[in-house]
Amino acid sequence: MEDLKSTELTTWSHSAPLFEDFQLGEEIAHAGGRTVTEGDNALYIGLTGDRHPLYCDAEFARSLGYARELVNDLLVFHIVFGKTVPDISAGAVANLGYAGVRFLRPVYPGDTLRARSKVVGTKENSSRKNGNVYVHTHGMNQRDETVLEFYRWVMVPKRDPESDYGESSVPDLPSEVMPDQFAIDEELSRTEPGRIDWPSVMRIEGQHTYLKVHHGPGMTIEEAEHATATRLYQNTARVHFDAHFMEESGRGRRLIYGGHVISLAHAMAYNGLENAARILAWNSGTHANPTFAGDTLYAFTELLGTMDLPGRADFGAMRLRLVAVKNLDPSTSFIEVKTYDEAKKREIYHPNVVLDLDYVVLMPKI
Amino acid sequence: MEDLKSTELTTWSHSAPLFEDFQLGEEIAHAGGRTVTEGDNALYIGLTGDRHPLYCDAEFARSLGYARELVNDLLVFHIVFGKTVPDISAGAVANLGYAGVRFLRPVYPGDTLRARSKVVGTKENSSRKNGNVYVHTHGMNQRDETVLEFYRWVMVPKRDPESDYGESSVPDLPSEVMPDQFAIDEELSRTEPGRIDWPSVMRIEGQHTYLKVHHGPGMTIEEAEHATATRLYQNTARVHFDAHFMEESGRGRRLIYGGHVISLAHAMAYNGLENAARILAWNSGTHANPTFAGDTLYAFTELLGTMDLPGRADFGAMRLRLVAVKNLDPSTSFIEVKTYDEAKKREIYHPNVVLDLDYVVLMPKI
Amino acid sequence: MEDLKSTELTTWSHSAPLFEDFQLGEEIAHAGGRTVTEGDNALYIGLTGDRHPLYCDAEFARSLGYARELVNDLLVFHIVFGKTVPDISAGAVANLGYAGVRFLRPVYPGDTLRARSKVVGTKENSSRKNGNVYVHTHGMNQRDETVLEFYRWVMVPKRDPESDYGESSVPDLPSEVMPDQFAIDEELSRTEPGRIDWPSVMRIEGQHTYLKVHHGPGMTIEEAEHATATRLYQNTARVHFDAHFMEESGRGRRLIYGGHVISLAHAMAYNGLENAARILAWNSGTHANPTFAGDTLYAFTELLGTMDLPGRADFGAMRLRLVAVKNLDPSTSFIEVKTYDEAKKREIYHPNVVLDLDYVVLMPKI
Repeated sequence: MEDLKSTELTTWSHSAPLFEDFQLGEEIAHAGGRTVTEGDNALYIGLTGDRHPLYCDAEFARSLGYARELVNDLLVFHIVFGKTVPDISAGAVANLGYAGVRFLRPVYPGDTLRARSKVVGTKENSSRKNGNVYVHTHGMNQRDETVLEFYRWVMVPKRDPESDYGESSVPDLPSEVMPDQFAIDEELSRTEPGRIDWPSVMRIEGQHTYLKVHHGPGMTIEEAEHATATRLYQNTARVHFDAHFMEESGRGRRLIYGGHVISLAHAMAYNGLENAARILAWNSGTHANPTFAGDTLYAFTELLGTMDLPGRADFGAMRLRLVAVKNLDPSTSFIEVKTYDEAKKREIYHPNVVLDLDYVVLMPKI
Repeated sequence: MEDLKSTELTTWSHSAPLFEDFQLGEEIAHAGGRTVTEGDNALYIGLTGDRHPLYCDAEFARSLGYARELVNDLLVFHIVFGKTVPDISAGAVANLGYAGVRFLRPVYPGDTLRARSKVVGTKENSSRKNGNVYVHTHGMNQRDETVLEFYRWVMVPKRDPESDYGESSVPDLPSEVMPDQFAIDEELSRTEPGRIDWPSVMRIEGQHTYLKVHHGPGMTIEEAEHATATRLYQNTARVHFDAHFMEESGRGRRLIYGGHVISLAHAMAYNGLENAARILAWNSGTHANPTFAGDTLYAFTELLGTMDLPGRADFGAMRLRLVAVKNLDPSTSFIEVKTYDEAKKREIYHPNVVLDLDYVVLMPKI
Repeated sequence: MEDLKSTELTTWSHSAPLFEDFQLGEEIAHAGGRTVTEGDNALYIGLTGDRHPLYCDAEFARSLGYARELVNDLLVFHIVFGKTVPDISAGAVANLGYAGVRFLRPVYPGDTLRARSKVVGTKENSSRKNGNVYVHTHGMNQRDETVLEFYRWVMVPKRDPESDYGESSVPDLPSEVMPDQFAIDEELSRTEPGRIDWPSVMRIEGQHTYLKVHHGPGMTIEEAEHATATRLYQNTARVHFDAHFMEESGRGRRLIYGGHVISLAHAMAYNGLENAARILAWNSGTHANPTFAGDTLYAFTELLGTMDLPGRADFGAMRLRLVAVKNLDPSTSFIEVKTYDEAKKREIYHPNVVLDLDYVVLMPKI
């Protein structure tokens, strides 16, 4: 073995990027790929209780033209998101929002996911203590096909409040994913009704009236569950894992990764939305309040509208608002999701609402 | 997007079936299939500690003539059972019993399970507040072959105590699965002893005397563990997941799914029953007392008898009584499983006994 | 069914081997094999957060010449170790150390692992209450190729303190695995730099100076997490699972399996050691203090040296010291790992240090 010259001490410590580190137009190839397997799908079911058949029933998937069961769309999202964390949000003080989230291609067990992001906006905040960073992220499979893309923006601390960042640039993000931007899987075929065992609730049936669906029983979350999920997603954000740091730094308890809250709410939404085949897009999403271990989540959905899909008589799209509420059952205690706060002069969320997601699913027509 | 006519509010809430909803003779095709994978087997091992080699050792399985390792018989049971919950027991106040549980065919990773049930009995209780529903359930694979069948009965509340349900019908359920009803896998072959690395304890060796086997160390259960297991089984019964509801409704804490208690006891039973190849049948089973997170389970087995199998010189069947006890080690503190209660004028279980299972395993002959 | 002659009560209880049970030179074929699958790899990621690409990125593995992603080297270790527990350490009062741990061949999902051990030393302690047992363990795949070998020694109680064990024999264990004992996988090829997407930190670049790498955020461990991991490894040591016993016997709380602490520290070590391709060997390892649920682990690495590998210009070996610390962030609070205790007249570990591992990884040269 070579002798070491012990003359120098170099300490390298994993450091999260700060606001000044982001350059508008910069392209980031996030390190590492991830092969998603049957094992990930199984653990995802164990952690969320998901029952949507396209992700757990190979025979159902084949009846629609797919090769086999798919990797859960949200698991794909979380893995791609997780890859971006070290370069984008490891040091963020807040995940502010999502836009233009499009699920473009099915991911099968055995596929390998990678991610790259482009910085599409930077805006110093008026406090000069931090700034918002807007990124456009692509998730690709092993054939370099994009399977998912999305915009998100985060608030990141500045290294030096006094530093002069220069001009702000706020991108013009889509407020809604339009029907011609939905990717309908080529393999998707709907065979004669008799062959597909669609569960019986909620299909697209022409004109809809206002519909609100309560998704039934709640789900209580434990520390071991959200931490295992977030590790599975290889998301390394400290706030989800490091209880010692959270306590020492006066931040309290570990925060549950907001994406996992989406997964739990979406898994519950199977009750009443059994026919939702896949997720096509998210228009926007808000983590209205934090979720902690010990909280019990409930969910309900409001139907925002239905859309025809170009060239498809068999499937349409349904735009839905998925709301998750903690420690209060919204099917028995009515709540206003948002109310106007006179003092703050803006709309604020009910303190028990933890998620407000505007998204679009693929639905069979009757 | 089409405009919505917001003139009508429709609230759909997942509603568990009540006693009046069950019709004698009714056949229910439970929604959805489930492809069971290597991932499910791995998570099952992580949650139970199971070590029976037929489920985790492909080489051992091949040495017996199987294509590869099997999906754990109890995992098959739980998944089939889970499929029935929304239609049968989501609103049940008690799972009263099992009978005639037969494991008929091996399930391999990649197979897809479905379930259907027939209502074979309904009996209003004397209180008129609830009634017992008896179902006969079949679990099928993707080739529509029955892999599992069982009877179970549950107590379900009535919608209206005053309603007149009509005549009761209590089915004549088998008290025991007879040897000619055991399904011996066609592929099962026992090659020369040298090739099979049977662990060394308990084979069928002619006449047996009374035998009691203590299965060693206990296993403490956490909320995250039983909830993850029960979600993996896609069992949606509220009492296992919704801590907020349990507390608000005065029911206390989340209950651990009784089937998972069977899994834990059976995994512990590997110590001393290493040669048990597969489960052939359950004659009956009782969840004698509830189990909660924080409890430590211990298990012991009593040998009830041995049986020859038609046409097989290499394997026989062993009828066993598996007892699980909480928070008390029955190998050091003797307990009477059941005692006669003078006041109640019937046998009652020791308060620490949580499971009393009469079942049959496939055992090699010496 | 045959009638049982209930004339005899035989109680079999799982009994851990005691010091007198070990014979020098004895060879033990541990019961049972274990097929390691994609499911095990996924759950391992969920429980540790591991991100080393060779174990989770099939495309990366293929770019290095492997058939697909490997089973994590540490998961292989834990499964082989777990197989030895019932015969070696189920009754041990302490796991004293490891030596000569060599990872010899890649293990792929679908491979089946078995283990055998030879007793290579026995030494009664001066108290005569217990003794040390030294074993040499081999882990083999389904082709009987050794994939892993290691020495470990444990302190085991004597059945009878008065018994005369006879002569002690302490083996001459390697203090270090030498470069010519490293097994470099035949399939390992490093293609042109452009094709391999190596993350950017720490490669072998000629002469190194003293280097200390802090691996960033901590990881808090829950009971459900370590117990699930240890069950996945099919490790049955009572102290990890049986909270009732630990409390009743005055031993306190469940201990976290030391191997899982290695896994957590190694997973954290990805931050800063992204280029470590595989583990080649451990020279020695000490579980300096116990770890309990609720503890938060931090890790840092010191570079001990670099080595050329015979006939390889593309890869070298790096000898590292991986230290895990509980409930104290060593990147912000400096600690002396070991200090000389005047009273005890020997070096003692800092009370927050839980792991001190001297190991060797395969590293690409620049």
